[in-house]
Amino acid sequence: MSVSVNYPEEFAGFAVLDTKDWNKPKYITYKPKTFGDHDIDIEIECCGLCGSDIMTAMGGEGWGEIKLPQVVGHEIIGKVVNVGPKVSLHKIGDRVGLGAQAFGCLSCRRCKEDNEQYCKDSVTTYDGVYPDGYVSQGGYASHVRAHEHFCFAIPDAIKSTEAASLCCAGLTVYSPLKRYIPTDLPNGEKPKVAVLGLGGLGHLAVQIAAALGAEPYVFSRTDAKKEQALQLGAKGFVATGTKGWAEEYFDQFDLILNCAISLSGLDLDSFLSILKVQGRFVSVGLPAAEEKYDVSPFTFFSNGSSLCSSNLGSRKEMLDLLDLCVKHDIRPWVEEIPISEEGCNTALTRAWKGDVRYRFVFTEFHKAFGTGK
Amino acid sequence: MSVSVNYPEEFAGFAVLDTKDWNKPKYITYKPKTFGDHDIDIEIECCGLCGSDIMTAMGGEGWGEIKLPQVVGHEIIGKVVNVGPKVSLHKIGDRVGLGAQAFGCLSCRRCKEDNEQYCKDSVTTYDGVYPDGYVSQGGYASHVRAHEHFCFAIPDAIKSTEAASLCCAGLTVYSPLKRYIPTDLPNGEKPKVAVLGLGGLGHLAVQIAAALGAEPYVFSRTDAKKEQALQLGAKGFVATGTKGWAEEYFDQFDLILNCAISLSGLDLDSFLSILKVQGRFVSVGLPAAEEKYDVSPFTFFSNGSSLCSSNLGSRKEMLDLLDLCVKHDIRPWVEEIPISEEGCNTALTRAWKGDVRYRFVFTEFHKAFGTGK
Repeated sequence: MSVSVNYPEEFAGFAVLDTKDWNKPKYITYKPKTFGDHDIDIEIECCGLCGSDIMTAMGGEGWGEIKLPQVVGHEIIGKVVNVGPKVSLHKIGDRVGLGAQAFGCLSCRRCKEDNEQYCKDSVTTYDGVYPDGYVSQGGYASHVRAHEHFCFAIPDAIKSTEAASLCCAGLTVYSPLKRYIPTDLPNGEKPKVAVLGLGGLGHLAVQIAAALGAEPYVFSRTDAKKEQALQLGAKGFVATGTKGWAEEYFDQFDLILNCAISLSGLDLDSFLSILKVQGRFVSVGLPAAEEKYDVSPFTFFSNGSSLCSSNLGSRKEMLDLLDLCVKHDIRPWVEEIPISEEGCNTALTRAWKGDVRYRFVFTEFHKAFGTGK
Repeated sequence: MSVSVNYPEEFAGFAVLDTKDWNKPKYITYKPKTFGDHDIDIEIECCGLCGSDIMTAMGGEGWGEIKLPQVVGHEIIGKVVNVGPKVSLHKIGDRVGLGAQAFGCLSCRRCKEDNEQYCKDSVTTYDGVYPDGYVSQGGYASHVRAHEHFCFAIPDAIKSTEAASLCCAGLTVYSPLKRYIPTDLPNGEKPKVAVLGLGGLGHLAVQIAAALGAEPYVFSRTDAKKEQALQLGAKGFVATGTKGWAEEYFDQFDLILNCAISLSGLDLDSFLSILKVQGRFVSVGLPAAEEKYDVSPFTFFSNGSSLCSSNLGSRKEMLDLLDLCVKHDIRPWVEEIPISEEGCNTALTRAWKGDVRYRFVFTEFHKAFGTGK
């Protein structure tokens, strides 16, 4: 397929048409949202495949019902091709990234205090609803339109296909690592971070935690990923399939970053036992909606630990992350796959099985959509 | 009853003999633990009734099976009548308090960093097990023996019956309030603390939060305790039986202190919604063992809030609390009841029904045990 999309009247993309066929997006064209004063249009060059794409595409079997048709994808890199009259952060021709958030009010306290990811008027990059009722569409597409605040200039030193994964996976792990890794341990002790699950999120968390001065340890069910974990910079590797694995690590960790997408079989009590007093267990992976923790106030009683989640990060954190990645040569490990109906099907199916080291990035958008001219 | 206990060979106390008769402790005598170098003996003057006493006495219907016979009580005030050879913190004749912890190793990192309440060798004041197998016995008794570190000099300005409740209830709420009330809000904004449940813990939390510079709000099912909450210093009162109560308080609170003893009917999602970004929901009340939270990673996703518990506090915090109480005239509201089998039965039964404003303190120990001579 190589059709020239009728931009700016229409965008084209690969859309989920039925959640039963979540891994079989089809080519569609659609009207973009009304062009806002602060909006920019990005002609997409490449887009990462995030676990969110799958959980969204699955509808009720994933995170819940969605609006159809739905173009997923929120690790977007491309070129600015149009800017609204009030845009000041970007200009036509710039290379920018867009992650999982496309809009926020920018006037509430959360927005003003660099917590715009928690703005209650936040609109996600896809399957979000704008005030006028328009349903946002994501990055498996020719173009995407978003508020300038949520688009980030990409430093020249970072390749587009690597920058893509940073826009969601990278920011999602960077924000809690930056917020929760203690910087004031006595006697020059290095903070220890447990990264639970080595995948798209985890493999970035290891590199970022190390760059932030912590000692990352990877916790995985088996030894299968041990060598890669150490190659990524992990200080240690723990196979949690081994009975009694937690005893040796009692009271050692400042932070656990749960990057696993399922809670099934998660031995939360053992994990909490490796935390120091007031340590945190922070989930960044979101499982299917019906999965629950089994906790009571007793769960946290032996060390005052806590359970929380973290959602994305702020614009400020994204810019800090890009700087950090340049400075420390942090690179997502990506597998490129040309975008097409077949490419979407292959990548979604393999990613769902965990068959990727560690992130798919769709490429060749110009060819697929007749753009880039 | 007025027998003279055969101290120091024996202590006397009112013990739960069968968890089915949790509210009917009977008079017994028993051998104290081996006298350690750092131990002191306290001849008890009065002892508060804590919810823990009930949940422990109930055994399997409460927090789980216990060792019998069991003398509960861990809000103890009395006079030092014996000191071990290495005791340096107290001398014979001093008036001291003892809370819910009677021992810790004092050499692990937790102990050294003023987190001895989380020491893994911690022994609770009752139903705890010392390294030699001795089962600790609490304060519904003639005497109690404990490590000096866990006993606190009581300032002259505080009456014994009021000091009693501070030793557990007071410390239990002080520690998380001190640790988690933010002190760096921008523009001189006052932190807001939601106190969930107005009882033995909650009525102290309101006073202590205010003394620490926060604005405490009481959240209770009905308006019944509104007047008392305001009298205690609450800035606001919210009846959570009213549909939609949470909307008005969206994004306002830095901390929720859950002082309620049951999770039954707790609308956690609504409570978390009133927290600011990264706010905390901290439980200090411990429900029956089988009660669970209904949470998933999604629960915390809209604001990065967290769920945790807090267990007691450190010696340092207890001494700070006593200072704060003198300085701010913080007083537990107590109802005194002479200790006896009948007194225990009445107080335990009424406390279980919530029929006390807000703490029972058992008194007249010298008369009951023939001590104080």
